[in-house]
Amino acid sequence: MRIRVDVGLIHYPVYNKNKEIITSAVTNLDLHDIARAAKTFGVDTFYIVTPLKDQQQLFQEILDHWLSGPGARYNEKRKNALEKVRICESFSTLSDICKAKWGVAPLILATGAGPKESSWPYEKVREIIWAEKPLLLLFGTAWGLAEEITQMVDGFLPPIKGIGEYNHLSVRSAAAIILDRLLAERQ
Amino acid sequence: MRIRVDVGLIHYPVYNKNKEIITSAVTNLDLHDIARAAKTFGVDTFYIVTPLKDQQQLFQEILDHWLSGPGARYNEKRKNALEKVRICESFSTLSDICKAKWGVAPLILATGAGPKESSWPYEKVREIIWAEKPLLLLFGTAWGLAEEITQMVDGFLPPIKGIGEYNHLSVRSAAAIILDRLLAERQ
Repeated sequence: MRIRVDVGLIHYPVYNKNKEIITSAVTNLDLHDIARAAKTFGVDTFYIVTPLKDQQQLFQEILDHWLSGPGARYNEKRKNALEKVRICESFSTLSDICKAKWGVAPLILATGAGPKESSWPYEKVREIIWAEKPLLLLFGTAWGLAEEITQMVDGFLPPIKGIGEYNHLSVRSAAAIILDRLLAERQ
Repeated sequence: MRIRVDVGLIHYPVYNKNKEIITSAVTNLDLHDIARAAKTFGVDTFYIVTPLKDQQQLFQEILDHWLSGPGARYNEKRKNALEKVRICESFSTLSDICKAKWGVAPLILATGAGPKESSWPYEKVREIIWAEKPLLLLFGTAWGLAEEITQMVDGFLPPIKGIGEYNHLSVRSAAAIILDRLLAERQ
C-alpha cells in the first residue's frame, strides 16, 4: 500500500502567548525531530511553511549541511530523514502542492491542544490512511494555529489527553505522538 | 488511582555512534520536552541522570531559571512541567531513590530502537501501571543505553515500529510516544 500522508509545520499565521498573530522563528530541533518521525512513520513529505525569505534561507542552509555538506558524511540517518523536508511559503501554496501531487484535494486536518467541537477520531483517520486517501496534517508552532488557518481545514484531530488537565506538549512531541497513533504498526 | 511511573534519562553510560561508552552532554530541549510530556501523562518524577558535576550544575541553572527565576513569571506552564525534574548521579542511585519512595523495588524497563529478545507488550505494561505498581522507564541519550545498564533491568519495551526499517527517532520523540502508549486516555 501507499501512504499518502503529508505534514505541514506552520510558522505563520500562529498565535503568541497573548493570542496575537505572529510569524514564529526557525527551531532547528523541530526540523530534525519531526523529519525523523516523518521518516519513521512513512510520511510522504514534511513541509516547513514560512513566508519569511530569510527564514526559508536559514532552513535551506541547515538542510544543505545535512543533505550534501559535512553532515551528510557524519550522519547518514539524518540525511535520510531530512530528504523528506520541503520549504513552502504559505498554507494555500501547500494545499495546492498536495492537490497537484495526489491528483485530488487531500483531507486537511489541524492539530492543537484546545478542545474542538468537531474532531475526527484517530481510528477513523487511520482507516482513511489505510484506504490510501491523501491526508495533510497541520501543526502550529508557538501557541498554535491561527483561526485564519483552522477556518479553512476539513476538521481537527482530538487534542492529546494524558492524566489531568495539563496538555502543553511541544509541537515535536505532539507530532511524534500523532504520527504514532495514525501510522504505527500495532504492537 | 495513583500513577507510580518514573522516567530516567541516562547520560552515562551510553554509546556514541561508534559504540564506545561515553557521557553525553546536556540537551536543553530534552529537559523541556520530556518534562512537558511527563507532566501531561502524570509521571511522578523525571530524573536526569549524569555523573558530571558541571553538567548537574548546568541542569540546575536551567531549572532555577524556570522554577524561581525570570522564566517562572514568563511561562508558568514550563514551571509546572519542570517541577517534575530531579537530578541524580547514577542509575544505581536512581533505583535506590525509587525503591525508597515507593517502599518496593519498581519494575525497571529499558527502551531503545534495537530489536530485543524479551520485551514486555505495551498492553501488559499498561495493566501493571493501572494496578498501581511502580515502574521506572529508562531512556538513553546519544546512541542509546550501554549494556552495563540493560543487563541490570527487568526487561525492555518493544522498539517503536513505523513503516519500513527506519527507526531513528529522537529520545524526545520516543519518550513522548511511549508515555502516550502507556498512559494516555484511550480516544
